[in-house]
Amino acid sequence: MNQPTAQESGAHDGIRIITTGGTIDKIYFDARSQFEVGDPVIGHVLEEALVKHPWTVQELMQKDSLEIDDADRLRIREAVQSAPEKRILITHGTDTMAKTAEAIAETGDRTVVLTGSLSPARFRSSDAIFNIGAAFAATQCLPAGTWLFMNGQVFKAGDVKKNLDSNCFEAL
Amino acid sequence: MNQPTAQESGAHDGIRIITTGGTIDKIYFDARSQFEVGDPVIGHVLEEALVKHPWTVQELMQKDSLEIDDADRLRIREAVQSAPEKRILITHGTDTMAKTAEAIAETGDRTVVLTGSLSPARFRSSDAIFNIGAAFAATQCLPAGTWLFMNGQVFKAGDVKKNLDSNCFEAL
Amino acid sequence: MNQPTAQESGAHDGIRIITTGGTIDKIYFDARSQFEVGDPVIGHVLEEALVKHPWTVQELMQKDSLEIDDADRLRIREAVQSAPEKRILITHGTDTMAKTAEAIAETGDRTVVLTGSLSPARFRSSDAIFNIGAAFAATQCLPAGTWLFMNGQVFKAGDVKKNLDSNCFEAL
Amino acid sequence: MNQPTAQESGAHDGIRIITTGGTIDKIYFDARSQFEVGDPVIGHVLEEALVKHPWTVQELMQKDSLEIDDADRLRIREAVQSAPEKRILITHGTDTMAKTAEAIAETGDRTVVLTGSLSPARFRSSDAIFNIGAAFAATQCLPAGTWLFMNGQVFKAGDVKKNLDSNCFEAL
Repeated sequence: MNQPTAQESGAHDGIRIITTGGTIDKIYFDARSQFEVGDPVIGHVLEEALVKHPWTVQELMQKDSLEIDDADRLRIREAVQSAPEKRILITHGTDTMAKTAEAIAETGDRTVVLTGSLSPARFRSSDAIFNIGAAFAATQCLPAGTWLFMNGQVFKAGDVKKNLDSNCFEAL
Repeated sequence: MNQPTAQESGAHDGIRIITTGGTIDKIYFDARSQFEVGDPVIGHVLEEALVKHPWTVQELMQKDSLEIDDADRLRIREAVQSAPEKRILITHGTDTMAKTAEAIAETGDRTVVLTGSLSPARFRSSDAIFNIGAAFAATQCLPAGTWLFMNGQVFKAGDVKKNLDSNCFEAL
Repeated sequence: MNQPTAQESGAHDGIRIITTGGTIDKIYFDARSQFEVGDPVIGHVLEEALVKHPWTVQELMQKDSLEIDDADRLRIREAVQSAPEKRILITHGTDTMAKTAEAIAETGDRTVVLTGSLSPARFRSSDAIFNIGAAFAATQCLPAGTWLFMNGQVFKAGDVKKNLDSNCFEAL
Repeated sequence: MNQPTAQESGAHDGIRIITTGGTIDKIYFDARSQFEVGDPVIGHVLEEALVKHPWTVQELMQKDSLEIDDADRLRIREAVQSAPEKRILITHGTDTMAKTAEAIAETGDRTVVLTGSLSPARFRSSDAIFNIGAAFAATQCLPAGTWLFMNGQVFKAGDVKKNLDSNCFEAL
């Protein structure tokens, strides 16, 4: 699951999308009366949005962000560093998104944008599609470095936290 | 309809949104069996997306973009030039979006991003929410100048057209 | 388009769905800046609703109901009378739905329910899915005869009209 | 929460809706990374469906159906028996819906229809709206007794179970 397919690997000018799980991909399993991280939705979102800019999805892990540990962050960093593309979008759970952003702040000449959502993309009303659109554009517009987009705002890695009381991202 | 309200006018650090109509705002009037440009959807989209970054909506006109003429483009340019904000998002019909972008290419030190959608925001499946998210982020990320976002791609004003055969935007 | 396929024809105990067009199936064609009656949505709606009861779709015509004339009503009546199933759901535009219901009021021992919607099923907010669910249940519950379901209410054919001022169906 | 308001109580000819919780009303609380039964959605669904037939909502409890016990079933039965309306729709979780239906099979001259959904109504794709439409029509069409609508089918109380392997309702 964690290696891009041959079919995908030609798009060096495009945007690499690395998915790690989080609320954005949550789906409901009635049989277990439980919500779990499901397959990434971002491919469907990009098709629905009629995106013609080249992109490729690399499914790296399917975790709640509270379960993402330092070993996982190392894997994310390696996936970024070994990507043939210069522009990378990462979908990630919100609880530790700011921490992962900081852990991968050194990107060389790559532009990396993390995003996710506070409610699942499969909901009728969600911040997911807006955030994916925002991050997809931001990877094309921002200089090299690691960035985060949530609550309608672009943040620099290391300068953002999730405020647990307001359930919103804000600058430090 | 075309003047920002007093309540809105303080947000100089925020993003001014100028709405001009287009498919993105189309609504169905069963009584007339007709689709027409309705009230702007962008405010609802930003609320659903849990946007905390300040923004204000200025409803300038409600037109199909085929009906937008040079006098309208002058009004749009004046609205841009008289805006207190440096960052401006314009929603616009797709047929003449590239033409309007070119007509307002001189923005001084403002960053202006035009977007719209190929199907109405009120549809269950549409490029509208993705495009609004993208444009909202792009206004924060791009340098001064006029830009256009459609089909997943950031274009420079003057370097983009809508290909009527493929129904997609592409670089000149 | 107007003949059921062989694959479909075994389901005599199931519900036959005859589609005639109307707002419920309207789709937006950006290339022509126009809304037109598209392919029937009802199959997708039934799949999304996890329907296990057998059904088959017969696409009879794709018309705005204002364009449906007496020859069309004859075709609809013939489709009803030649159906192997006893339970029939018809999707139809709203403007002349009451007239068509009356024209096919004689059904022998068949239960026929007409429905449609005041806004397209492809909209995020629409009466379409609710109405299809209602009509699908009503075909199973009602005695022989022709019925109409709109605005949350079951009406008998001949005892209903669309009030053009309120844009609602009401009993005569 | 469990008493109808004075404003509601006049609609004796209408449909009483008793909500008990279940997947249909589940909402996501990001702050707790958890899905829980939220406020009933059915009022919004009926408004979106442009329902003109009178109805009133009585919020009786907000429970996963696995948590509904015999005391709860007694409360549901009492709510049915004390309702001024003859036609009653109950929304209920799916896991014990068949059991509750059986427990309230004696309704005197009332028509009672239970429904729910296998995925939350707040999802973009769900069986919820279809099922609500179906149950709303079925209460108008069926004779006195207790019924259940799921998976596109009307079942008689006592003659239906949820098949846990296929995750579908089927006749006994």
